[in-house]
Amino acid sequence: MFFHIKELQYTAKPDKPDPIYAKKLQEVLGGQYGEMSVMMQYLFQGWNSRAESKYKDMLLDIGTEEIGHVEMLATMIAQLLDDAPLDQVEQMAKDPAIGAVLGGMNPQHAIVSSLGALPSDSVGYPWNSRYIVASGDLLADFRANLNAESQGRLQVIRLYEQTTDPGIRDMLSFMIARDTMHQNQWLAAIAEIEAKQGMITPASFPPELEKREVVHQFMNFSQGEESAAGRWASGPAMDGTGDFEYVQQPKAYGQAPILKPAPDFMHSRADQAPSIVNVGTLSK
Amino acid sequence: MFFHIKELQYTAKPDKPDPIYAKKLQEVLGGQYGEMSVMMQYLFQGWNSRAESKYKDMLLDIGTEEIGHVEMLATMIAQLLDDAPLDQVEQMAKDPAIGAVLGGMNPQHAIVSSLGALPSDSVGYPWNSRYIVASGDLLADFRANLNAESQGRLQVIRLYEQTTDPGIRDMLSFMIARDTMHQNQWLAAIAEIEAKQGMITPASFPPELEKREVVHQFMNFSQGEESAAGRWASGPAMDGTGDFEYVQQPKAYGQAPILKPAPDFMHSRADQAPSIVNVGTLSK
Amino acid sequence: MFFHIKELQYTAKPDKPDPIYAKKLQEVLGGQYGEMSVMMQYLFQGWNSRAESKYKDMLLDIGTEEIGHVEMLATMIAQLLDDAPLDQVEQMAKDPAIGAVLGGMNPQHAIVSSLGALPSDSVGYPWNSRYIVASGDLLADFRANLNAESQGRLQVIRLYEQTTDPGIRDMLSFMIARDTMHQNQWLAAIAEIEAKQGMITPASFPPELEKREVVHQFMNFSQGEESAAGRWASGPAMDGTGDFEYVQQPKAYGQAPILKPAPDFMHSRADQAPSIVNVGTLSK
Amino acid sequence: MFFHIKELQYTAKPDKPDPIYAKKLQEVLGGQYGEMSVMMQYLFQGWNSRAESKYKDMLLDIGTEEIGHVEMLATMIAQLLDDAPLDQVEQMAKDPAIGAVLGGMNPQHAIVSSLGALPSDSVGYPWNSRYIVASGDLLADFRANLNAESQGRLQVIRLYEQTTDPGIRDMLSFMIARDTMHQNQWLAAIAEIEAKQGMITPASFPPELEKREVVHQFMNFSQGEESAAGRWASGPAMDGTGDFEYVQQPKAYGQAPILKPAPDFMHSRADQAPSIVNVGTLSK
Amino acid sequence: MFFHIKELQYTAKPDKPDPIYAKKLQEVLGGQYGEMSVMMQYLFQGWNSRAESKYKDMLLDIGTEEIGHVEMLATMIAQLLDDAPLDQVEQMAKDPAIGAVLGGMNPQHAIVSSLGALPSDSVGYPWNSRYIVASGDLLADFRANLNAESQGRLQVIRLYEQTTDPGIRDMLSFMIARDTMHQNQWLAAIAEIEAKQGMITPASFPPELEKREVVHQFMNFSQGEESAAGRWASGPAMDGTGDFEYVQQPKAYGQAPILKPAPDFMHSRADQAPSIVNVGTLSK
Amino acid sequence: MFFHIKELQYTAKPDKPDPIYAKKLQEVLGGQYGEMSVMMQYLFQGWNSRAESKYKDMLLDIGTEEIGHVEMLATMIAQLLDDAPLDQVEQMAKDPAIGAVLGGMNPQHAIVSSLGALPSDSVGYPWNSRYIVASGDLLADFRANLNAESQGRLQVIRLYEQTTDPGIRDMLSFMIARDTMHQNQWLAAIAEIEAKQGMITPASFPPELEKREVVHQFMNFSQGEESAAGRWASGPAMDGTGDFEYVQQPKAYGQAPILKPAPDFMHSRADQAPSIVNVGTLSK
Repeated sequence: MFFHIKELQYTAKPDKPDPIYAKKLQEVLGGQYGEMSVMMQYLFQGWNSRAESKYKDMLLDIGTEEIGHVEMLATMIAQLLDDAPLDQVEQMAKDPAIGAVLGGMNPQHAIVSSLGALPSDSVGYPWNSRYIVASGDLLADFRANLNAESQGRLQVIRLYEQTTDPGIRDMLSFMIARDTMHQNQWLAAIAEIEAKQGMITPASFPPELEKREVVHQFMNFSQGEESAAGRWASGPAMDGTGDFEYVQQPKAYGQAPILKPAPDFMHSRADQAPSIVNVGTLSK
Repeated sequence: MFFHIKELQYTAKPDKPDPIYAKKLQEVLGGQYGEMSVMMQYLFQGWNSRAESKYKDMLLDIGTEEIGHVEMLATMIAQLLDDAPLDQVEQMAKDPAIGAVLGGMNPQHAIVSSLGALPSDSVGYPWNSRYIVASGDLLADFRANLNAESQGRLQVIRLYEQTTDPGIRDMLSFMIARDTMHQNQWLAAIAEIEAKQGMITPASFPPELEKREVVHQFMNFSQGEESAAGRWASGPAMDGTGDFEYVQQPKAYGQAPILKPAPDFMHSRADQAPSIVNVGTLSK
Repeated sequence: MFFHIKELQYTAKPDKPDPIYAKKLQEVLGGQYGEMSVMMQYLFQGWNSRAESKYKDMLLDIGTEEIGHVEMLATMIAQLLDDAPLDQVEQMAKDPAIGAVLGGMNPQHAIVSSLGALPSDSVGYPWNSRYIVASGDLLADFRANLNAESQGRLQVIRLYEQTTDPGIRDMLSFMIARDTMHQNQWLAAIAEIEAKQGMITPASFPPELEKREVVHQFMNFSQGEESAAGRWASGPAMDGTGDFEYVQQPKAYGQAPILKPAPDFMHSRADQAPSIVNVGTLSK
Repeated sequence: MFFHIKELQYTAKPDKPDPIYAKKLQEVLGGQYGEMSVMMQYLFQGWNSRAESKYKDMLLDIGTEEIGHVEMLATMIAQLLDDAPLDQVEQMAKDPAIGAVLGGMNPQHAIVSSLGALPSDSVGYPWNSRYIVASGDLLADFRANLNAESQGRLQVIRLYEQTTDPGIRDMLSFMIARDTMHQNQWLAAIAEIEAKQGMITPASFPPELEKREVVHQFMNFSQGEESAAGRWASGPAMDGTGDFEYVQQPKAYGQAPILKPAPDFMHSRADQAPSIVNVGTLSK
Repeated sequence: MFFHIKELQYTAKPDKPDPIYAKKLQEVLGGQYGEMSVMMQYLFQGWNSRAESKYKDMLLDIGTEEIGHVEMLATMIAQLLDDAPLDQVEQMAKDPAIGAVLGGMNPQHAIVSSLGALPSDSVGYPWNSRYIVASGDLLADFRANLNAESQGRLQVIRLYEQTTDPGIRDMLSFMIARDTMHQNQWLAAIAEIEAKQGMITPASFPPELEKREVVHQFMNFSQGEESAAGRWASGPAMDGTGDFEYVQQPKAYGQAPILKPAPDFMHSRADQAPSIVNVGTLSK
Repeated sequence: MFFHIKELQYTAKPDKPDPIYAKKLQEVLGGQYGEMSVMMQYLFQGWNSRAESKYKDMLLDIGTEEIGHVEMLATMIAQLLDDAPLDQVEQMAKDPAIGAVLGGMNPQHAIVSSLGALPSDSVGYPWNSRYIVASGDLLADFRANLNAESQGRLQVIRLYEQTTDPGIRDMLSFMIARDTMHQNQWLAAIAEIEAKQGMITPASFPPELEKREVVHQFMNFSQGEESAAGRWASGPAMDGTGDFEYVQQPKAYGQAPILKPAPDFMHSRADQAPSIVNVGTLSK
């Protein structure tokens, strides 16, 4: 069960409205790696958690924090849309500055949401739940979370670069700091699990059932061998069970596939005579 | 530019058809973490790469391998659909085994794709490109890739558990091994980048511009303190710049937000008198 | 079965082209609450109707009218796109007015639809049928319809504010009037059903099977009690079976959930030993 | 900012697992009218609210309650998936009961979420934010909310009918009661606003700018006049400004549309001679 | 403007209900190539038509017919869902036949639509308007239409094979016949346009501006030359301007691409020093 | 299995960056008829092919070529985004030219992809696999392919018109030429199949099972008879089995549908008394 308090986790006040920036800021609210994604990802991981209670609690702590981040962004976006010059449509054609604002806004801010935040990204695409994952495997999911916080921090920093409004930057500097913490947090949680089960997840699949000969091979599926220069191509593999091997010319182990012709009931063959397989009652 | 060779990377031959398993196997072909996702993710990361050539080459090597993985899965699925008993629809009601197969198949295998693979997941949802990311930041993207290979290997192993067909298991054991390698690969690539730039990405944002006081705080947004027991709540932070701190009762730094009333041209206020702001020509 | 007549239900002729307004107007053609939505919602409610014939007939009457509204909007949009200055791309960089038009248009109007209407909303997102509902429950569906006409009329009025073109406004004034009628219509239909079955839908669920103690409680899930000031927090409830009650501190009736550990065949536990549950044939 | 407490708002414990029912129950978690929809709809309406503070507070109260409803459903679904017989895949073909369960489950419960809830509906389609609306107009949005609670209560009652498990029914009887309250709540809020501004929303559009002759006409766009029998076809209109009128044969007020031929730069005309309009540099 | 008549274009009466077949039949109502697609495709092509009036009229004739096809399918599906044994949920576990029906139905038929048709396909995925095209180019669009009628007829025939119910087959035999006509129609319309403008569309692009050397080359991008055996690899090309040529080893005409490093403001480089490009106001 | 070579199939080098054109060019990379669509469509048709090997080989040849086309477009887009003036955000308000570029770009190019190509179309909508088809029927699929190449060539030509950059035009002139070849190719393949099986696909449905009286009728579902003027309305039908017939007033062959009332367990009737059908255990 959840409770709400009125104050925001951090101040969300722009120095002045900026409807085009409001459009851009939607990316980190409702985009693939926006706050709605981490909020829902952590909450579902927590609700579904079948692991020790410290994980469930931790996941719900951070998921609950993220609801508050969506709230901050929504509040900021609404204020960035204050005073959008929609009362000046006749000036639009004459004044290029007004025209640029009215033409460059997300039109749904003016038609659908009454100068409020949308649950969408910077091109207006709605958030959807295929963005998130809760697989039940702690290591897999913590890597998903580390990825989300890495992509998210990157996007917020790019948005910091694309405004110089002190109020916006103040809020973003808080969000960037929390993303730093959240990268720290998932790195710590990952270290804890990797120490327990090893680097490859899931660890419970019997290694002898894998095709062992290819678990350390980097396969060069292209002309040229620039890819041999990386850490992934030689030296000890990260799982500690062997050395990386660079396969200059990967071979095909499999067959040249030939599929059986389609059965008559599929009606997919150019040379098939007219007839029905499931005869039953043919006419009424 | 790309070339194709006829043989599959590894054998894809089930011992016998199994249309319901074909439906399930679609998950790792066209699902969120299926082979289409890693194929497109690595190819776009490679094509867009602005980094040293060894990264671009490596990304295109593995992206090219993954096209071949989609090919193996598509070939396997088509064979699992061979002999689906659609010529026995009248037996469906009488024979529960036939009824279960016909009722449990993905109907699009029988109506749309003529017993062929679909570019969809196990519930029939189409693959879409918001599953993938190519952010240009190597560390962020390699973490995305490690996550994808972690989720993917987990799903393939669950599918290995859900059949005992030796032919399917043989192919899956190859794919699991390659996923092991690919986790190894991204772990290695991540280690290489983290050694260069540190653990927090992107590293190029000036630390002094973050709200420093919250970069190491775990905030307990719930009753109870089970979450204090994890590595993320105490001890040195992973970025090496301080110690984790557990905040038992997180405070609100921000304002209780009050938004300005909607302007008249939004027509959103219950007490607003009838009128038009952009008067212009009112009637024709 | 349906028939078409050539004339539009109402005149759709702008005084002059306006490609950026064409982009905006797409919202009420192909958006969440656009004419495609009401058209398809009413038609499906009518086709699926299992109620008295007057309802089926009425739903198909209004659904059929709405096809004609999509037609009017499509016709209007095509004319707003006439003369888009795509023959002046070299002037784009020099003349800010041309640049604004070419940069602010929906690019698909210029690339995909040949200056014709798209079945999309104002940000280019395609219409999809999860926008609509036909639940079979008349009261639920008429409330859906009243909502659609309320949101729709609001959006059309906002669009009326965002142009001063007399031709566009003339058509919109007809559509606004029809939306007034349609709100009137659903209010009347709702009154008719509520008189029969009461205010809460569906009425056929035995009241004694609901947790009666919470059917009239407003629960204050936040700090502060501003929400106590509304009609929903005190006085007789609208269903006539009791009084609203304001619960200052809602309690948790349920358990602190603890889920069973994941079974071995899920391969989701960090401490799980390597093994396969469904042993069958393990290698080939 | 938000806080979490460990206990659920109401008990969520099935008497026994039921993986097929888990699939169905997803509808009211992640479907068009599931708890994710009301949760996000109320939160966004609250965050964007520019009205008196009692509305913002009330919206966030109920939005916060709904987060807890998603939590209850997720917890219930995870327990319904306990003991899914995935360790018996070899028995599937022989035992029709096991076959029916394994064939009838949502495969993603077994492959993706490790027997946990998914943020999807009963056919596996992901939740997306085009399901919700926050228009800024209180009357329009409260009608949206009343619709959501009407559709939602209906679906929960249908699900109540489709199980006889006492534990599931116990939880559903709480949710049905809350949906009763929430219908009561929005009916009360609507009454409050309608008393202020009248029945037609938005009220701020000047009535004289609507085509007045059609604001009370029911138009019979079909053969037959069954639709004349409803309250919507005669008697005083609900807005109190006139009487409903039944138009037996609606007329076309508009033109038969003729669009201008496509300009040459669109390359859309069958009889167009080869040439380029934007000549610029034609070859390299 | 449109009118509705009560009678269906053709009889839609199954001999007996069949809820699983109802699920399958959704494919040709709301799937990629279902009747909703052709209905909307033809209507949008007609509404947007800038060509001679005979095309606009013809497109709207057939689009209007297709609305009636959606109506027939919706009516059929509702009747196939009559008597779904949802009043026998307790028998489900005991009677495999009832279990198969309840487990194999589309759950939304039982929860959402009250045994009515859904605007979705056979896996429950909603119809969306990216399925359709109205490009303004008659030849391109008539080819789209021929494709839609080809895919659609194929799917209806497969569905005919998957039931033996005489009532369903009777309706399908009408729809198959209309699809035959519609293939005939588009073939005729295509012949008319090809006679005017030639085989390659659009014809208005100056041929000399194409890279002429590759307009007739079939490029063999794989090992092996089976593809040389087709009509597409030798003999006169269909456009009458040359002969097909089989290129055994296609060459790369282009550069090995090297992209510029990302600029600092993107924060995408592992070796980038901390700093901000758009300095402005850095702290508050 | 696939291999990659470093060089592009054709040169992809713009003369100068143009971020707004980069947004537009996304349409033919990731749009409904972009290169991702033909790439995936041909690959799936090839992988699923159950026909003679020349078809499988040919489909995989062209599918493999198309991967290289996606590569060319991605490379071009990345270069068009070079030097986007994001380091000049403070100049944006003052300099209309910079403002137009920054306001008119796809914001995800600046926030998400680090000036790289996105797997999306020109309005930012992600590519999804419901764009493609692999039906197993060669004639149906080759018509799908001809349509895709017709729409695709049209869009590329429109994009050629909307720039005069010699480098972009050079690459587009190669792609237009390949689209010419690909139209040629599918026309040839279609001719080959039509010669074998006739014009109507699939040919294997027994003609006597179609309602023969309507296979050649053009039905005039509108006022006016302009549609009688086309080739589709008179003369020999294209299938060679009769003459087209123009039906001036199409008749309704079917019933006026009346559906059975909803059963009690659906809780959809306004006059239904409170009760539960599946009684079981009613309270806890």
